[in-house]
Amino acid sequence: MKFVTNRNAFIKALNTVSRAISSKTTIPILTGLKMDVSESDILLTGSNADVSIQTSVKASNPDNELTIKSTGSIVLPARFFSEIVKKLPDKTMSLEVGDNFQTTIKSGNSEFTINGLDANGYPHLPEVDTENTVDLAADIFRQVIGQTVIAVSKQESRPILTGVHFTLANNKLLAVATDSHRLSQRRVSLPADDDGKFDVVIPGDSLKELSHMLDGIDQNIQMNLSENQVLFTLGDTRFYSRLLEGNYPDTSRLIPKSSNTKMEFAAGDLLSAIERASLLSHESRNNVIKLTIKPNDQVVTISGNSPDVGTVEEDLKPKSSEGEDLEISFNPDYMKEALRVFGQTDIEISFTSALRPFTLVPTENKEDFIQLITPVRTF
Amino acid sequence: MKFVTNRNAFIKALNTVSRAISSKTTIPILTGLKMDVSESDILLTGSNADVSIQTSVKASNPDNELTIKSTGSIVLPARFFSEIVKKLPDKTMSLEVGDNFQTTIKSGNSEFTINGLDANGYPHLPEVDTENTVDLAADIFRQVIGQTVIAVSKQESRPILTGVHFTLANNKLLAVATDSHRLSQRRVSLPADDDGKFDVVIPGDSLKELSHMLDGIDQNIQMNLSENQVLFTLGDTRFYSRLLEGNYPDTSRLIPKSSNTKMEFAAGDLLSAIERASLLSHESRNNVIKLTIKPNDQVVTISGNSPDVGTVEEDLKPKSSEGEDLEISFNPDYMKEALRVFGQTDIEISFTSALRPFTLVPTENKEDFIQLITPVRTF
Repeated sequence: MKFVTNRNAFIKALNTVSRAISSKTTIPILTGLKMDVSESDILLTGSNADVSIQTSVKASNPDNELTIKSTGSIVLPARFFSEIVKKLPDKTMSLEVGDNFQTTIKSGNSEFTINGLDANGYPHLPEVDTENTVDLAADIFRQVIGQTVIAVSKQESRPILTGVHFTLANNKLLAVATDSHRLSQRRVSLPADDDGKFDVVIPGDSLKELSHMLDGIDQNIQMNLSENQVLFTLGDTRFYSRLLEGNYPDTSRLIPKSSNTKMEFAAGDLLSAIERASLLSHESRNNVIKLTIKPNDQVVTISGNSPDVGTVEEDLKPKSSEGEDLEISFNPDYMKEALRVFGQTDIEISFTSALRPFTLVPTENKEDFIQLITPVRTF
Repeated sequence: MKFVTNRNAFIKALNTVSRAISSKTTIPILTGLKMDVSESDILLTGSNADVSIQTSVKASNPDNELTIKSTGSIVLPARFFSEIVKKLPDKTMSLEVGDNFQTTIKSGNSEFTINGLDANGYPHLPEVDTENTVDLAADIFRQVIGQTVIAVSKQESRPILTGVHFTLANNKLLAVATDSHRLSQRRVSLPADDDGKFDVVIPGDSLKELSHMLDGIDQNIQMNLSENQVLFTLGDTRFYSRLLEGNYPDTSRLIPKSSNTKMEFAAGDLLSAIERASLLSHESRNNVIKLTIKPNDQVVTISGNSPDVGTVEEDLKPKSSEGEDLEISFNPDYMKEALRVFGQTDIEISFTSALRPFTLVPTENKEDFIQLITPVRTF
């Protein structure tokens, strides 16, 4: 195989597939990057067994300045090859595979020859049927990921909880994640002409990678499912992830139907106060802060106390508050992560009692986004 | 003690002294920040035993909005206290020390009480006589540090080589560092009215900290010496460092007086080519690249070879070259660090033979800056 290409166009494709490549894999060939050169394009593939990314540099796009001189396939050491391509002196580069997978890269007066591997040893990507396609707006889907992935479990003891549970029915996409201490649930209405239906759990780590790839993208992505794989297609790029196997717990019954105390805040104001209080709780063995809520006085006191380090107390005036007085303690980190994904909106917090989970929802479209945090017993 | 101050002005002073404070010290009280409040200012002190930094927030500067209500001293946990001050909600803050060194910090509706320590337990800073002062332009001195500190030894086997050797005589400041594989020497002429004289070795790590502090400063700093300490004064800030004890080796005899092969390059062009070649040498056990110099052909070939990974070769045309043909091998990292501190200037490289150190100097003012690199024997 042999081709000449614009170096920046090639680097862009390299960066895309490199997201999936880890140097810490147990399968040596996966530290490599696979290139398949056909008469029309270079197809690049990177994979870490959980996630695989494939993208192409097409000869038909004049920006790529791609001339394919002969076809073929090769696997090259990904990190090392990327470093070389990024440091080459000229605007164009050529790549040619010779005997014994020896690959020569030329640019300007610089010439590298590196040892490649037989592409036949590279694992095959899963086959995903692209018939029943669900169309998603990239920016909305990225928001859904960001709002739910915070609540996935970091512990492998219940693997199913390390993913986000996505269900599609009646043109509503529902995404839920919980680590059993907190829960985040987001609902999005899809265009009514979409009559797909699914119920899958996608690993949180895969979604984080996908989210990076969707950053700043203002178009639709296509989602396809097979029995144990999901494929997202974004233009010339395909992102594959395995699905988590098993039944996701029924989370709908966890969300309280009623409440005894309610308050409204600007999410940013409450976040700043919680961040201050958590400075102190982080120095303490039990990372807990307390809210003392007095709806009649329209005041909430946020306090923390660590015998070794000191105390903190701050009065915050809610935008509105109603119901019973309450003292409730919780892990401030859960609260901070929950508040951050609300951004600059107003939120409503609803409490039942000191030992029952409480909820945070935006004051507008309350049904579409709900977060739940379990308090900590301190007595 | 009690004061009210503008929070940003106080943060600026906190950041300055925090440079010297490490959480990894073996002396517990040095994880703290000392504050001494007099009727005219707050004096802040941070130290890691090697380096101490002291700065003040003065009541006489209206920008500080400083009102001192009562005087006194306290030591507060530096990292934790800084985090609190940076997160406070209001533009001003107050600080008051109560019984048992309990310190209350207020800003807006937020109130922290943290446990302080008795300032009498904090070590005294060294006394440095401020009579024989040497004035240095901050930007020039920062350049001198940057150009020499790259060559200090990272090994503690010969402690004296972990510092930069500064000598002042006849209005010439000479700075030299060597780790015995390479050497960097810079000379600066001081204004003729300065008749100071000294010979000291300042630890490289102290100089790196000082260099950060001098970043973007466009004024003079004052240098004072005692037997085992150096004090740099920059406006309201004092930077103390211990000196290294022992005799610095005589380095003047290391610099070759003659050469058999000479070349001129734009430092940046050579740097790029060396960076490419080092990508390959870094993958190899012996991190070495080779220059093949043919002055008659006006070409230099930079090459690297690693049996496991591959080969690299690049032809570079020097701006000029003269003398004998030569093949010479060396550690590309020494070369990269040397070339980087030349910036965008033209340089002259002079070789004696394949096993003798070679030198790099700027093509202008060759006497004022010289770097020396020892080659590696590869046969």
